[in-house]
Amino acid sequence: MKKLQSTERLSLNQITTEQWNLREAVEGCAKADIPYISLWRHKIEEIGLKESSKLVRDAGLGVSSVCRGGMFPVDSAAAKARNFEDNLRAIEEAYELNADVLVLVCGAAVNRDIGDARKMIREGIERLVPYAKDAGVKLGIEPLHPMFAAERCAIVTLDEANTIAEQYDSSDVGVIVDVYHVWWDPDLYKQIKRATGRILGYHVSDWLVPTPDLVKGRGMMGDGVIELKKIRQAVEEAGYMGPIEVEIFNEEIWKQDGHEVLAQMKERYSEHV
Amino acid sequence: MKKLQSTERLSLNQITTEQWNLREAVEGCAKADIPYISLWRHKIEEIGLKESSKLVRDAGLGVSSVCRGGMFPVDSAAAKARNFEDNLRAIEEAYELNADVLVLVCGAAVNRDIGDARKMIREGIERLVPYAKDAGVKLGIEPLHPMFAAERCAIVTLDEANTIAEQYDSSDVGVIVDVYHVWWDPDLYKQIKRATGRILGYHVSDWLVPTPDLVKGRGMMGDGVIELKKIRQAVEEAGYMGPIEVEIFNEEIWKQDGHEVLAQMKERYSEHV
Repeated sequence: MKKLQSTERLSLNQITTEQWNLREAVEGCAKADIPYISLWRHKIEEIGLKESSKLVRDAGLGVSSVCRGGMFPVDSAAAKARNFEDNLRAIEEAYELNADVLVLVCGAAVNRDIGDARKMIREGIERLVPYAKDAGVKLGIEPLHPMFAAERCAIVTLDEANTIAEQYDSSDVGVIVDVYHVWWDPDLYKQIKRATGRILGYHVSDWLVPTPDLVKGRGMMGDGVIELKKIRQAVEEAGYMGPIEVEIFNEEIWKQDGHEVLAQMKERYSEHV
Repeated sequence: MKKLQSTERLSLNQITTEQWNLREAVEGCAKADIPYISLWRHKIEEIGLKESSKLVRDAGLGVSSVCRGGMFPVDSAAAKARNFEDNLRAIEEAYELNADVLVLVCGAAVNRDIGDARKMIREGIERLVPYAKDAGVKLGIEPLHPMFAAERCAIVTLDEANTIAEQYDSSDVGVIVDVYHVWWDPDLYKQIKRATGRILGYHVSDWLVPTPDLVKGRGMMGDGVIELKKIRQAVEEAGYMGPIEVEIFNEEIWKQDGHEVLAQMKERYSEHV
């Protein structure tokens, strides 16, 4: 497997520098020669879609993804309508930003019925696909770690994500492989292979021992136990050669200077990813 | 499905009352009419095996399990030898206490190679089975939640546990179903069915939203999102009608009076389990 050269294919997922606003993140990437960025919608909202779009375009950055659509399971018709509207806005933002993919974080198990949540997720995606297709925006189903099943996403394995994605054209719907969410899965390599031609994003970070926090306890690559190189190799063998996002939720990293975070990220990227 | 009557089949997993020593836990169960207890080895060690055995026998309690053997992945020959000796002691303790099963918490992924950890686990069990068989002690492989893969157990699905258990006679090796560890699994009901005749224990607690801590954040039954009744029904349809352990790692519960914990546990048991 080829070692990654410097910032080749590197993307800053904006949550890694939660301490920065969108302008700072874009400027930080430009300064550090990082070619891609993944934008979060709460950051886009702060300065507006038009300004966000202008900033990334002027900086010559590629937008590897927009985070996030999804959150389909709801418990009322009103909430369902609001959710649909919000997903349409997410598609519009991904289109306007010329993003490679809109990431779907599908939504949590509710009412002590995880099977029902999964049904609402499948239906939510089904309803969204034609709109995304019209806009030329690809939808990327991201399985999240099972520890997020009750709060963020009932789709917890690549197997499930593949099964849903396979209902659609590979040019419309695919999957996101995030090492943090899938590294534990005994079925991982089989499912990566199965996703050949459908992988729309690859995210890296590391699993710290001990993990300080369920949500904000991810580690910088090299600080944890995930077999990063082996997973990248499998993802590349499955045909994905696009941007590699560094997506780290970590309170300690959020306290650091953003430029220092990017410098360390680049160093760890060529060494460990 | 039959509602559980009062303390019918109820077992106190001793970690739920970590604030109590073994004598207190035994006396607490006797006072609360709880027919079974699951003993932890660090508690047994405090007063010795002989005294522990006498206490539970005199109280007329059944021992639903001893926690725990396992922890097979190691990184030296010396550690491997120590691990083997420790597992032999665990078998001896389970035998002496007349426990229904020795629970195996199989051990964590090490050295950025979870596949290798799984191999060491399979080999560790293979080596242990004849000794357990000789002692008439059943080994119960407990898959743990994937969030424990890096620190406690690389066996994270019932599928994996079943696959290992099926290598052996069902009278020697089986699986433990703990709702906290498996509730998120899209393959759960299929795997419970597959485990028919091999389920050696059923553990309950609940998944809190939000979860305050990875290790010590489990909830009392009814306080979380797990579909407890549906899972019990599946486990019973798979032939398991033995003790149901309440196993809750929770710092707040550990601060309470043990008798009050048992009273709440009994109430929640007939209502929610």
